[in-house]
Amino acid sequence: MPDLTSPALAAVLSHADAALEASRATLFSLLRIRSISAQSEHAADCVKAADWWREQLSGLGFDASVRPTAGHPVVVGHFAGPAGYTGPHILFYGHYDVQPVDPLSLWHSDPFDPQLIGGPSGRRYVARGAVDDKGQTVMFLEALRAWHIAGGGIPVRITVLIEGEEEVGSVNLDPFLMANKADLAADVALISDTGMWDVNTPALTTRLRGMTYAEVTLKAANRDLHSGLYGGSALNPINALTKILGALLDDAGRIQLPGFYDKVTPVSNSQRTQWDGLGFDEAAFLGGIGLSSPVGERGYAALERLWARPTADINGIWGGYTGAGSKTVIASEASAKVSFRLVPNQDPDEVMAQFRQFVTDRLPPGATATFAEFARAPGIEVNVDSPYVAAALAALADEYGRPAVLMGCGGSIPVVTSLRTILGLDSLLMGFGLDDDQVHSPNEKFEETCFHHGIRAHARLMAKFAA
Amino acid sequence: MPDLTSPALAAVLSHADAALEASRATLFSLLRIRSISAQSEHAADCVKAADWWREQLSGLGFDASVRPTAGHPVVVGHFAGPAGYTGPHILFYGHYDVQPVDPLSLWHSDPFDPQLIGGPSGRRYVARGAVDDKGQTVMFLEALRAWHIAGGGIPVRITVLIEGEEEVGSVNLDPFLMANKADLAADVALISDTGMWDVNTPALTTRLRGMTYAEVTLKAANRDLHSGLYGGSALNPINALTKILGALLDDAGRIQLPGFYDKVTPVSNSQRTQWDGLGFDEAAFLGGIGLSSPVGERGYAALERLWARPTADINGIWGGYTGAGSKTVIASEASAKVSFRLVPNQDPDEVMAQFRQFVTDRLPPGATATFAEFARAPGIEVNVDSPYVAAALAALADEYGRPAVLMGCGGSIPVVTSLRTILGLDSLLMGFGLDDDQVHSPNEKFEETCFHHGIRAHARLMAKFAA
Repeated sequence: MPDLTSPALAAVLSHADAALEASRATLFSLLRIRSISAQSEHAADCVKAADWWREQLSGLGFDASVRPTAGHPVVVGHFAGPAGYTGPHILFYGHYDVQPVDPLSLWHSDPFDPQLIGGPSGRRYVARGAVDDKGQTVMFLEALRAWHIAGGGIPVRITVLIEGEEEVGSVNLDPFLMANKADLAADVALISDTGMWDVNTPALTTRLRGMTYAEVTLKAANRDLHSGLYGGSALNPINALTKILGALLDDAGRIQLPGFYDKVTPVSNSQRTQWDGLGFDEAAFLGGIGLSSPVGERGYAALERLWARPTADINGIWGGYTGAGSKTVIASEASAKVSFRLVPNQDPDEVMAQFRQFVTDRLPPGATATFAEFARAPGIEVNVDSPYVAAALAALADEYGRPAVLMGCGGSIPVVTSLRTILGLDSLLMGFGLDDDQVHSPNEKFEETCFHHGIRAHARLMAKFAA
Repeated sequence: MPDLTSPALAAVLSHADAALEASRATLFSLLRIRSISAQSEHAADCVKAADWWREQLSGLGFDASVRPTAGHPVVVGHFAGPAGYTGPHILFYGHYDVQPVDPLSLWHSDPFDPQLIGGPSGRRYVARGAVDDKGQTVMFLEALRAWHIAGGGIPVRITVLIEGEEEVGSVNLDPFLMANKADLAADVALISDTGMWDVNTPALTTRLRGMTYAEVTLKAANRDLHSGLYGGSALNPINALTKILGALLDDAGRIQLPGFYDKVTPVSNSQRTQWDGLGFDEAAFLGGIGLSSPVGERGYAALERLWARPTADINGIWGGYTGAGSKTVIASEASAKVSFRLVPNQDPDEVMAQFRQFVTDRLPPGATATFAEFARAPGIEVNVDSPYVAAALAALADEYGRPAVLMGCGGSIPVVTSLRTILGLDSLLMGFGLDDDQVHSPNEKFEETCFHHGIRAHARLMAKFAA
């Protein structure tokens, strides 16, 4: 029976401090697994990462199993909680898969050989997945372990759900949730895949942008052509693709899909006032990545553009001759990957249709367009008046000695939508990443102070839930 | 002393007819040499082809030698002409090297075992180099031989220049021309490496498009970014590149570089009338490659667009994530290869500067552009009022019994520029290839009727020059 007195929590936190080196070793063992979900040659590594989670959870007394899907497997673990437990049943969600590592040449070390190095905020961990999401999920695991070892047992009822396809759009997660509704029943979801305001200021994320992500291929002639023989007569699909995609945004940063802004609602004045009060320094934000001037919609403040306005980004483009030197070719096709960050109320299906229409309307005669669709997730706004939000705000304030900020997040976490629509759960987004963590980029890192505070904050949150 | 009377020419032509089988055997012996310039394992074959030419020319009384370059050797042969000759000194240019033969599996016979087979226009020769350029150069050789044997001697002063690197960009030819200016002095160049209008209609090629070819790279942030964290604030270089390159052409197909058309001169009405009279079927031309509608400048007929109007083609583009699936990345850079086909009077250096300015003027704040430059060659227009053109038109009309067409060529033949700028020579482009000769492709062929008429037309041309 866990002891929920303040001395018991003190012992748990004390253990978390003392065990930090062991916690880091645990994280590093997971970081060594090359679980890149986008690349089929790493399918076995994904299974390995799932097995890793099953073993870890089993070791803490969970009833854990690796469950197949049409893609990479899901790990589910149940812990019933103490006898007579009447508090909320928590569903903890995370993912074991990571982004591809290219361009590999920009990494200072092997992305899967985690490094412990020094930095301005103390020690940091460098590896693919260091923060997204292996580091953040292992914080939770280590909070469980601290209670298990030093607190008389894990004090709450918990289901853990770790998927392996978050970085490729979680395509098999919804069917899994639908097929396992009863097994995944809970009261609230807890997700650690977001960020802090800064290294000293904790945050809850209450707004997430959604996404529509498509790939378009324009095809023209039935083979590559010599530009001397055909130039001036034969359609060049790269010319056509750049003309179409170059018209996606006007000079004021407004997205040109007809109807795109129809369902975009403005943020409240009070929310805008709170964000303005944070004193966000966009020049410093951009300076850190070597840029001087912001882009985005003219007339909106930086945080509003990042958290509450939609975007259109071409994430990749290719076609024709891309080797060294020159080749006088007119290619037969050209492709691009295009994504739209969406805000609450925008319908991702409608935006997908608008994009297809936008391209189709501009196709020159003789060109055909084919589409592949990778993601459709709406934006989310969390109800900030819930007791779960109150518990998390209190745990963070206790840990950091200052109030947490209610942030937006420019990215999407599609699972938040799935958890709400399929399982009926609100999500609590308590994360410990920092803006400079190089998420999805070479030399991804996680600050040890964030990892350490994150373990402790999760341990405190368990006590708040159990109280 | 050659006899230039009409009976003498008749005897030469008669000999060319009677010797056709021997001429074909001569061509076949050259076709058996595997002189692929692009493949180092065939370097010795290139030397063998050069030796073949030296021996053939020596046998006709030329002072011929194989001359080394930094690459494959060049053959130079001199024939002084008859005593007291006062006509023009002809520089005949050709190349003995051929394209690689892959994919070999698509050939119906060994590319270096020349075949004599039947076709809709009579017999044809199938081999790599059958037309490009062994067949066309041997036509000239056999015209020399006919005069040598049956006309009392070759009636003109001739320098023959046969290079071995045309198919790999003639990289060592300009230095050779510069180092041998005096030795290669002449009055006009004669090149047989172009085509006829059709199998019954001879042609001179009098216009060649030039080229400016550049690669541009846009750089934005100093690393790849997560599109959720940065989208709406950080510059996306692919968005920027498509916006810039998408503006290269307007909806009417006009190139938008300021000043681009300033030096473009319209073709003459008589030239346009001649081209219109050819009945070019653009629908069939495009249908062959699976396209239905032409692109290019509105308001111009097909042949004028292909031969006498400039183009802008993006030959390659790349940036961001181009693998399978999706990645929510904002890339740090994006690149494209862009080429402009130029017409006579346009200055390739000016167009390069215009392109750089066009990109630079449209760079969003925070982006930088770097350029690599691959080609700058002006378009060429042969002076059609020259006595050499008149001689060639007369020779072709005599041979075919119908007037020759003055054609353009959408591509460039860099040696024409080199001969003009280094040796000060205009080129006479009299060729006998057909559109369906499969140049650079499997089963390259040359029609025997073209070969035969080509020998006779060159024999006639020598008489015109000498007269």
